[in-house]
Amino acid sequence: MTPAEITRRLEFEALYTDYAHCLDNDELEAWPDFFVADCGYRITSAENFEAGLPIGIVYLTSRAMLVDRVMALRKANIYEPQRYRHLVSGIKLGAEEKSGLGVTANFLVVRTMQDGAMILFAAGRYVDQVVRDGGAWKFARKDVVLDSRRIDTLLAIPL
Amino acid sequence: MTPAEITRRLEFEALYTDYAHCLDNDELEAWPDFFVADCGYRITSAENFEAGLPIGIVYLTSRAMLVDRVMALRKANIYEPQRYRHLVSGIKLGAEEKSGLGVTANFLVVRTMQDGAMILFAAGRYVDQVVRDGGAWKFARKDVVLDSRRIDTLLAIPL
Amino acid sequence: MTPAEITRRLEFEALYTDYAHCLDNDELEAWPDFFVADCGYRITSAENFEAGLPIGIVYLTSRAMLVDRVMALRKANIYEPQRYRHLVSGIKLGAEEKSGLGVTANFLVVRTMQDGAMILFAAGRYVDQVVRDGGAWKFARKDVVLDSRRIDTLLAIPL
Repeated sequence: MTPAEITRRLEFEALYTDYAHCLDNDELEAWPDFFVADCGYRITSAENFEAGLPIGIVYLTSRAMLVDRVMALRKANIYEPQRYRHLVSGIKLGAEEKSGLGVTANFLVVRTMQDGAMILFAAGRYVDQVVRDGGAWKFARKDVVLDSRRIDTLLAIPL
Repeated sequence: MTPAEITRRLEFEALYTDYAHCLDNDELEAWPDFFVADCGYRITSAENFEAGLPIGIVYLTSRAMLVDRVMALRKANIYEPQRYRHLVSGIKLGAEEKSGLGVTANFLVVRTMQDGAMILFAAGRYVDQVVRDGGAWKFARKDVVLDSRRIDTLLAIPL
Repeated sequence: MTPAEITRRLEFEALYTDYAHCLDNDELEAWPDFFVADCGYRITSAENFEAGLPIGIVYLTSRAMLVDRVMALRKANIYEPQRYRHLVSGIKLGAEEKSGLGVTANFLVVRTMQDGAMILFAAGRYVDQVVRDGGAWKFARKDVVLDSRRIDTLLAIPL
């Protein structure tokens, strides 16, 4: 590995770490900044993803839509405070191309309710396209591919 | 750390990442390629492992046996489609010796059934011996040491 | 990234890996060695942590107290053998200062009982202060911040 390759790998690990901490710390207002202006963000099931169906559970096509979504979440009544914890592992970098790098990673999200009950909230993989934008790595596209097709409360928060 | 040590560490992380993605993507036909021809692969309980009992829940002693196992799995009727998600962390490299490097790592596997139900399927550690083989790092020996001794459906899939 | 920054990042990953393996392997006698002599160790809930409440579920203010705690745990009757598995991810390094580096990381601990039942035992984040001590990185302070405020058996073991 060249020093540049080593640096890149560590930069990408830092990117996914920062992304997870942003969500887990409920700093949702900073979440859109992980994306380029004309990004794509989607939450979908593995079943739909593998069938090539474009529409998912959540489908946002610009950073402005991500900002809107955060505002909507903040306005909504959240009756039951809850905490999310992201575990991300297996970050795999693809080859660099003009359009950026493809990256896949496994994730698990555990939700803790106010009474202390913990559940496996979501498991799956990120299938992302990452580009250089203003000196930083940003998501040009992020597909959150859930192992489960059960969707209920998944609509609520970014993953 | 020397550049060679840094490179090695990142190569090993890539090895475990590729291994997890192979299993999670149900690319089982590629699974034996992670091993040398005269490999050992075992799934066992922590209890048996610590007692030094050689025989485990699964015990395969060559790559050809891994290939056979995949074929058997493909022929078997799987009544209920399910997805597995591996989270691997805490990859610890031992010193390099003639026989390769010892590596241990923690894993957690979450299973999602077709109806969306998620369970903790397996937790434990890999206790591996990794060697250079044809220009790549491969498993000379992999012991999948389960925290649980409950074995039921664990027989079905590689871990 | 400079070679020194790369080395540091990998050293910190090794630190958290060693810490997790120490606990998961039930090598509790080695656990205090991860800390400096006048360390602080605390297990607290996210609620209390964010409210700035100093006292937690566990609150130890020196390495000698950690040693005492391990001795107490060893003397206590443990009626039901159990295994813990730590998954740590998202290790985030702060800037280096005279007082050391701040580090945060996400963790998930899965507990397996003797009958094989697995549960999500604890999820949360480490909020740590790490310093150079005798040629190695050690914890000057470790706050184990639990997402849950349910505390029951959490009193028993180090996290």
